[in-house]
Amino acid sequence: MQLDNIQTFFENLQLQIVAELSQIDGCSFNSESWNKDGRIDGITYVLENGNVFEKVGVGFSKLTGESLPPAASIRYPELVDSSYQAFGVSLIIHPRNPYIPTTHANFRFFIGYPKQGEPIWWFGGGYDLTPYYPFKEDCVHWHQTAKKVCDDFEPGFYEKLKKWCDEYFYLKHRQEARGIGGVFFDDLNCWDFATSFDFTQKIANSFLDAYLPIVLKRQNIAYGERERAFQLYRRGRYVEFNLLQDRGTLFGLQSNGRVESILMSLPPLVKWQYNYVPKINSPEAKLAEFLQPKAWAELTLNAVD
Amino acid sequence: MQLDNIQTFFENLQLQIVAELSQIDGCSFNSESWNKDGRIDGITYVLENGNVFEKVGVGFSKLTGESLPPAASIRYPELVDSSYQAFGVSLIIHPRNPYIPTTHANFRFFIGYPKQGEPIWWFGGGYDLTPYYPFKEDCVHWHQTAKKVCDDFEPGFYEKLKKWCDEYFYLKHRQEARGIGGVFFDDLNCWDFATSFDFTQKIANSFLDAYLPIVLKRQNIAYGERERAFQLYRRGRYVEFNLLQDRGTLFGLQSNGRVESILMSLPPLVKWQYNYVPKINSPEAKLAEFLQPKAWAELTLNAVD
Repeated sequence: MQLDNIQTFFENLQLQIVAELSQIDGCSFNSESWNKDGRIDGITYVLENGNVFEKVGVGFSKLTGESLPPAASIRYPELVDSSYQAFGVSLIIHPRNPYIPTTHANFRFFIGYPKQGEPIWWFGGGYDLTPYYPFKEDCVHWHQTAKKVCDDFEPGFYEKLKKWCDEYFYLKHRQEARGIGGVFFDDLNCWDFATSFDFTQKIANSFLDAYLPIVLKRQNIAYGERERAFQLYRRGRYVEFNLLQDRGTLFGLQSNGRVESILMSLPPLVKWQYNYVPKINSPEAKLAEFLQPKAWAELTLNAVD
Repeated sequence: MQLDNIQTFFENLQLQIVAELSQIDGCSFNSESWNKDGRIDGITYVLENGNVFEKVGVGFSKLTGESLPPAASIRYPELVDSSYQAFGVSLIIHPRNPYIPTTHANFRFFIGYPKQGEPIWWFGGGYDLTPYYPFKEDCVHWHQTAKKVCDDFEPGFYEKLKKWCDEYFYLKHRQEARGIGGVFFDDLNCWDFATSFDFTQKIANSFLDAYLPIVLKRQNIAYGERERAFQLYRRGRYVEFNLLQDRGTLFGLQSNGRVESILMSLPPLVKWQYNYVPKINSPEAKLAEFLQPKAWAELTLNAVD
């Protein structure tokens, strides 16, 4: 196991995503290298007020520590107080056009060195999609892209990761899904290291294949104040999820991470409106149907989709 | 102890605040009476898109239960599983003009009936101010109004409640105060019931005396896009506090309260901007000085304030 290879993979993944999004947008990213308290190194790329993207954040961070806190080692009590390393790439894209969905992806690796015995490691990550005015064909494409990667590794693996995603990105207080899901995995070490790393690379590399065709297809759809208002309203749900529930956000803030890099996920502009309910049969009301978990990858499209 | 009197006081407080704010604004409130799962009764008044106020929420709620959850009775273990009642009024005002501060107030009463012994009751509440472009004289007036009420009850009581407020409305992850504070109290039962109720009524009734003169003084100050952008940016801190830290919000959501009434506190429009830092010596940079806790009520004003 070469940790350098993993770090290099994550760093290149960040650069590749930044390069491709920048090319589509026409605007470039600002970047900063930072260190927080000697514990965390990071590189944060942010694009604000782009042509296609209103805000994009793509962060790489590397965490090293001499003593893992008990709260972070629930699954492996032998890791308490052991030294550890973690790498990760995390990204969020808030497009301008309400017909393009918001998306989030995260890929990470953790390794801990117990005082006795072999190191304990795992990969985690996934990607999920949050549309405002959804298209069935986009949802099907999104899920089929993820499924194709998973199917090459283990039958039923996509279904497991999709379920995990649906369960994780669920706003308890609203009793509502954050979006149409995708894949999510944590603690992946059921396979050997080479296979787990291979899977993480392949699923991470499939992110742009899943998302960019949707951007290209929807970026020129005309929209007005009505669609914009609905987008801003729905972005409120994103804020609610990230600040009330998202484990990465809450852990980052509680563990004294770099606030601006953690909260770069928050949308550029957000609206809350008391007791808003979309009109029956309106395009805005249609979203609720999409937020019911479905076997998207199995759906067949017909002419009207 | 007449619970009806307390409930009537809270209901009238809500109506009085709604009436005065509506008169200043020129727009009227929408109201709803609601019941959640047979456990909570509420009346929520909301004004959106007013002339002076962009959003105001004033809520009354009444909670009754047969069995208090352990988490809600940390201070009084004898109240576990006992029946209880709670009333409260909670309000938030997000003005349109960035020269008028945002404010929040909350007043509440709780009574629990242990299986043995006397009922256990307390009052709680307070009000705090969150300016964007602060004026020293407004901060002094705000705190002096609260101090005047407290001083009639006990020397040093205002100082205690002010400190409590400063500590409560502190954004840990930003290491920053939410605003310039005010007064905050919980578990008030150190005096007899009549005195405690009298204090709660007087401090609650002083809220409009503290806030309205500031509104009237600042509502016609001209502002442009720059001030508006700063206001929307700073409102982000309000969202962060309410969703990450505010005990009322988190308890309400976790205990399955009415989501729209709990989250009516969120601002109508909010902006997040990555790594924003105000220019040195700008009016926006001046806010940071005001966010350092000060003995506002003791300050003397001179001609330049």
